[in-house]
Amino acid sequence: MKNDTIMMVHGSGGNATNTLIHEIFADAFSNDVLNRMEDAAVVPGSERIAVTTDSFVVTPLQFRGGDIGRLSVCGTVNDLLMRGAVPKYLTCGFILEEGLSLDQLQIFVRSMADTAAEAGVQIIAGDTKVIEGAGGCYINTAGVGFLPENVDISAVNAAAGDAILVSGTMGDHHAALLSERMSIQTEIRSDAAPLTEMVSRLTASGIALHTLRDVTRGGLATVLKELALASRKTFVIRDNAVPVSAEVRGFCGLLGLDPLYMGNEGKLVAVVPASDADRALEIMQASRYGKDAALIGYISEEEPGELYAETEIGGRRVLDILQGEGLPRIC
Amino acid sequence: MKNDTIMMVHGSGGNATNTLIHEIFADAFSNDVLNRMEDAAVVPGSERIAVTTDSFVVTPLQFRGGDIGRLSVCGTVNDLLMRGAVPKYLTCGFILEEGLSLDQLQIFVRSMADTAAEAGVQIIAGDTKVIEGAGGCYINTAGVGFLPENVDISAVNAAAGDAILVSGTMGDHHAALLSERMSIQTEIRSDAAPLTEMVSRLTASGIALHTLRDVTRGGLATVLKELALASRKTFVIRDNAVPVSAEVRGFCGLLGLDPLYMGNEGKLVAVVPASDADRALEIMQASRYGKDAALIGYISEEEPGELYAETEIGGRRVLDILQGEGLPRIC
Repeated sequence: MKNDTIMMVHGSGGNATNTLIHEIFADAFSNDVLNRMEDAAVVPGSERIAVTTDSFVVTPLQFRGGDIGRLSVCGTVNDLLMRGAVPKYLTCGFILEEGLSLDQLQIFVRSMADTAAEAGVQIIAGDTKVIEGAGGCYINTAGVGFLPENVDISAVNAAAGDAILVSGTMGDHHAALLSERMSIQTEIRSDAAPLTEMVSRLTASGIALHTLRDVTRGGLATVLKELALASRKTFVIRDNAVPVSAEVRGFCGLLGLDPLYMGNEGKLVAVVPASDADRALEIMQASRYGKDAALIGYISEEEPGELYAETEIGGRRVLDILQGEGLPRIC
Repeated sequence: MKNDTIMMVHGSGGNATNTLIHEIFADAFSNDVLNRMEDAAVVPGSERIAVTTDSFVVTPLQFRGGDIGRLSVCGTVNDLLMRGAVPKYLTCGFILEEGLSLDQLQIFVRSMADTAAEAGVQIIAGDTKVIEGAGGCYINTAGVGFLPENVDISAVNAAAGDAILVSGTMGDHHAALLSERMSIQTEIRSDAAPLTEMVSRLTASGIALHTLRDVTRGGLATVLKELALASRKTFVIRDNAVPVSAEVRGFCGLLGLDPLYMGNEGKLVAVVPASDADRALEIMQASRYGKDAALIGYISEEEPGELYAETEIGGRRVLDILQGEGLPRIC
């Protein structure tokens, strides 16, 4: 199907849809469950399951460090991991615009397959629809994971005295996307990554993981403010402790952007008892996507729901969730 | 938020997104799991689970007999039911185009909530993205169901001698959508319906259900041809046994359409041993959405993978899956 593009007929449900499914999807995602092509996939379950969904509408569809396919797996896998679940199964729903090149679609599909393999999940069900448009591509993934006994990781569990850790530099995904969209030459790469290995090391360590949250849309400040509200605690971070790469810092300075509000796709916040902080940090730094992990603050009970950033000279400013558009959109 | 419309800022991940989620989604879908607003929902599982997904891109968004919200629940619930699973949980991913009225979105969301309640499923996770456009709305749902022990309903299980049943009239959904799109005045209503009650009665009856399949995109002929191929059997239906309402028949006659290739959203095909056919038919006809259920044919081993329609005068024609566009598109 070289040089071909998606046409409305690929969404008919008839022979053109069949060809598309077999030549593009079935080949890349092949596994025993999916290959049965039933209305629903039947798989072994577990006593407690975690379920989540995310849609991906990023433009451009390919960018330095990844593409919409890799994103669509990372986003959903990471959401499962944030509850301490072991990601197992993904479904994927493609909404394709007329004019999308089949070669490009194949790149995204292979990228999904590779990322799923890295993340340890099977793609077991899918759906494809075609709409009028100009070559766009939207992907929804839903994920099912198994939750081991006694695991209780939740936004409400943050406790006074806990340490706040982040797994790496902030803003890379957002800056990479913006630099593509604004045609600014940089070497910044998206951080899109599945955090399966990091989280499985953390859960296996016996550390009391109170809260995990991936730092995506809205950025670190939005995520921490939401956690402060959910746990009714005060979150305090030190401005200069938040890791930001020199390139992203330069890019942000140029455009007047705040890395605290910029999205990432392979970074998490962990809230752990202060006594476990060093060990958690070591584990994160030894993990594939965690070399820049850092301790960035602590939790207190002064003012429930508040988030503060301490400046280098000892001042404090209040941070809120992202207001309005905030900064140029990437999704 | 009366008279307001979706704007790009609703997809920012910040305060506008929060307002949208709380005022439109959380209120309608409210349940203990969803209300926790975690990255993933944690729920009790089961030894065997069924998982499926479907995206909905129908236009117009509202039509006689339903709307995209009702469709998005029926499609996924029915896919779970077709494996004999008890539908339990749904996720929903909304991709909203700028300009969609919030009043209209609220109608779809309430429709989803009502249909989910009717179908016996909980909506436990969701996601919202906003894209440029002209007021469109796309919904993806993924579903998780529990599969009871010993249930084995599959496309490959159809056996020679089995009876083929359909649960009602063919083509209603497709004809309803086309009449809206072509501004032809008819009383035809979409058949969009969750078949939870019908399937739970059938599975509880002890009848050996070999295959269930919902008759959606591609229509009855496409579905039966796919089942013939999967089971390597011959499917033979009698043309005049296939239920089609007088109105849909008239509409199709007018436009030169074949109801055998038209989509439905609340109908299923059941393949059962001939000895159970009468009882299965009785159960279907006594179910809420099955009063027009009919025995339409039988399965033989003459020619693996073939589908035939027997005409009234005793002739036979070969039916294939939908070729090309086939007929005006509805999704």
